[in-house]
Amino acid sequence: MNYGFIKFIIGCVIKVEALFMLLPGITAVIYGEKTGLIFFPCAAVFFAIGHLISYKKPKEPQFYAREGFVVVSLSWIVMSAAGALPFVIGKIIPDPVDALFEVVSGFTTTGASILSNVELLPKSFLFWRSFTHWLGGMGILVFILVLLPIAGGQSIHLIRAESTGPQIGKLVPRMQRTAKYLYGMYLSMSLLMLAILLLFGMPLFDALCDVFGTAGTGGFGVRADSMGGYSNAIQNITTIFMLLFGINFNFFFLLSAKRYKEAFAMEEVRWYFVIYLLACLGIWLNMRTVGGEEAPDIHHVAFQVSSIMTSTGYSTVDFDHWPVFAKTVLVGIMFTGACAGSTGGGLKVARFVLYAKQLHIKMSALLHPRSVKVVMLDGHKVDNEVLHTANVLFFVYSVIFAVSVFILAWDNMDFETNFTAVAATLNNIGPGLGKVGPACNFSGYSALSKVVMIFDMLAGRLEVYPMLVLLAPATWRKNG
Amino acid sequence: MNYGFIKFIIGCVIKVEALFMLLPGITAVIYGEKTGLIFFPCAAVFFAIGHLISYKKPKEPQFYAREGFVVVSLSWIVMSAAGALPFVIGKIIPDPVDALFEVVSGFTTTGASILSNVELLPKSFLFWRSFTHWLGGMGILVFILVLLPIAGGQSIHLIRAESTGPQIGKLVPRMQRTAKYLYGMYLSMSLLMLAILLLFGMPLFDALCDVFGTAGTGGFGVRADSMGGYSNAIQNITTIFMLLFGINFNFFFLLSAKRYKEAFAMEEVRWYFVIYLLACLGIWLNMRTVGGEEAPDIHHVAFQVSSIMTSTGYSTVDFDHWPVFAKTVLVGIMFTGACAGSTGGGLKVARFVLYAKQLHIKMSALLHPRSVKVVMLDGHKVDNEVLHTANVLFFVYSVIFAVSVFILAWDNMDFETNFTAVAATLNNIGPGLGKVGPACNFSGYSALSKVVMIFDMLAGRLEVYPMLVLLAPATWRKNG
Repeated sequence: MNYGFIKFIIGCVIKVEALFMLLPGITAVIYGEKTGLIFFPCAAVFFAIGHLISYKKPKEPQFYAREGFVVVSLSWIVMSAAGALPFVIGKIIPDPVDALFEVVSGFTTTGASILSNVELLPKSFLFWRSFTHWLGGMGILVFILVLLPIAGGQSIHLIRAESTGPQIGKLVPRMQRTAKYLYGMYLSMSLLMLAILLLFGMPLFDALCDVFGTAGTGGFGVRADSMGGYSNAIQNITTIFMLLFGINFNFFFLLSAKRYKEAFAMEEVRWYFVIYLLACLGIWLNMRTVGGEEAPDIHHVAFQVSSIMTSTGYSTVDFDHWPVFAKTVLVGIMFTGACAGSTGGGLKVARFVLYAKQLHIKMSALLHPRSVKVVMLDGHKVDNEVLHTANVLFFVYSVIFAVSVFILAWDNMDFETNFTAVAATLNNIGPGLGKVGPACNFSGYSALSKVVMIFDMLAGRLEVYPMLVLLAPATWRKNG
Repeated sequence: MNYGFIKFIIGCVIKVEALFMLLPGITAVIYGEKTGLIFFPCAAVFFAIGHLISYKKPKEPQFYAREGFVVVSLSWIVMSAAGALPFVIGKIIPDPVDALFEVVSGFTTTGASILSNVELLPKSFLFWRSFTHWLGGMGILVFILVLLPIAGGQSIHLIRAESTGPQIGKLVPRMQRTAKYLYGMYLSMSLLMLAILLLFGMPLFDALCDVFGTAGTGGFGVRADSMGGYSNAIQNITTIFMLLFGINFNFFFLLSAKRYKEAFAMEEVRWYFVIYLLACLGIWLNMRTVGGEEAPDIHHVAFQVSSIMTSTGYSTVDFDHWPVFAKTVLVGIMFTGACAGSTGGGLKVARFVLYAKQLHIKMSALLHPRSVKVVMLDGHKVDNEVLHTANVLFFVYSVIFAVSVFILAWDNMDFETNFTAVAATLNNIGPGLGKVGPACNFSGYSALSKVVMIFDMLAGRLEVYPMLVLLAPATWRKNG
């Protein structure tokens, strides 16, 4: 294990985070909030610590997949722990486990909260909480790729550990250019959304936090009713931008390169919209037929499906009161999730496309044992190794899911609550159903259950393997 | 498609079933039940129909995997439809969908019922209902293999479609000997259990039905409280025999061949018992700590875990009132199920062993990209094709599960009920939780939902692929 390298990267991560902590500090100054000034000393201390750790460049520049996985998972844990400290010191969330839960939920762009009324929080803390979504969304490691060109071609390992999907996405030949491109796209789409929201009269602070939560597909709101209190126009704009941020960024790259034909032929993006429309239609029909209470407006359905499928987690209505089919569909699209190569969570549409194609080929192999077919995606053959990794992921995902539900069950909450609490954290959604529905929060669970869900959020965000590598004894064995 | 061959086999299946229908007829005579005499004309008509269909031996003796899959799935559907007819004609279960549900549940050894009080049924019908478990348990095709030696080596296709697990199990070189061996083992274990139950004072009729339900891992009871009313001794005997019938029959073969070392080294059997003991321990601890009501005796826990894990579905207590962790564990072991090559349902322990081994190898490949390792089971290399089939099965299983839950949700029952109703039918367990718990039944669902669960029971019993082949348009295409 190249400890020098790991130390160096973690140090840089802390330094970068310390710089970003100045923003909530400034927010506190603007709104005259005393408790929020805590961000300045925190930033100073973290910058000093980060500087000390990353002072020496690593002697050995060589690093392998093992280090890549470890550094990614450790970065997210360290960032979250550092980000949670102001909440504890400022006595906003005095319990360290609760504070860690909240900030892990932020950086993993989950949006699950243990707070019962966010409106009681100072604006500086609300800002920091939402801002962690925005940072987490694109992955802090994109910053590092741009800022730290020490590893050259090696950074492929980081991308592999970080990338949200089965394909690494060879947008532009060199890694750094990829990172800069993604970052630029992320920033411009965020700014565009901010401009439109301001145009439609959303207050600046709310608009900023809405953008952070949407771009990162996070979902922390700044009001007790999430997005319920805003105008229809603002809700619809958010619906559209949530959907946009759930698309594979390759799509936007192809568009900007004027390769329209390739862009619109992307199978994952097509299925993404098919699933979205089917889910909306199904829920709407269900509410019209069996929904006992008066069915809400179609725009609420469009909003909610967009919010859950992209793993954002905002709500405009309390969907826990929707009829059972509608709720079940919402739980279903928690698992399909958004596109690979987006900021969204879940298992990703691309994987389901690969699974379905494998089934199709398996069926024809059963009927015609001598036929040999390969899985194709967007006109390219998909490597067997990629398929196998995706298949094993599906299994390990299910096991983590089941074990988490077992542990949560010990708290004796009902099955639906436990099931959707794990679904909402492992898929980085935010709210679930029942006692963790949109009108409720996760504070009712024991500390053990919260730790399990912290693990689930990290495992979900990092696509499981980095967290497993971090915990595997073999990783830490000498010459292992 | 070799239609001649398919017709011939289906005809034989109907003939065999007609002969077995004489047994409930005789039961009716013994107990002087008039309605039960309906079995005689039914048997006569079915025998005639079967004879007509299978009169001509197929001209073309050649058949392929496609015919194998189709004939297996069609056999189960035809057998169930024929078996359900006496219930409809005798007005015991007047609704055809309900009757089909009940008999599919029997032949697939599920044990899920739409009846609210079985004690109201004539004994002849109770006998037939339980006897379908015993027939289904080992697979009607074992009979055919023994009775119809027309296909020679070709019957491997039938076994592949029928076999309950990833391995075909080459017990003895020739297929027919295998079938005879399995059938002999099944019969002797059933007789042994019957003798012991009679020794402990169980009435003959109850003992017979108990054996049918246990050997087939079915779970239809003849009393309203399932096995709750019998003595502890009888309950414990049932616990042990359920566990025995859930073991891979290779194990018994190795034992009878005095290959003890190999038998006890079988990894699947070891894990089967580890999971069993862990589930018992977890549930017992949970009941002692958080179980509000007085915790039931440990022997009830041992019974219930054995019953659910082997997919039998008997109950001695209403486990729907157990605390949430205990219930969640029961749901969990519905999915692991029993051993491959047993009469049990679920995904089978062997598959989980294969999944876990693949994950282990995947992890070490991530850490050491150049290492090449293969999956070994019981000292033999597992073929990549076998692994891939198991992996794809896990996915298609999950999709069938999810789609079924969606459709059931339309009836607006609660999520827990829908989730466990599908789990209990797709894994061939029997009772679920909530409104389909051990004290309740499946009659509350709509006809559409019942049809979905009929499909699930068949798909679960036949390990999904035969049912998919039956439904695939490509199967029915000419030269397809």
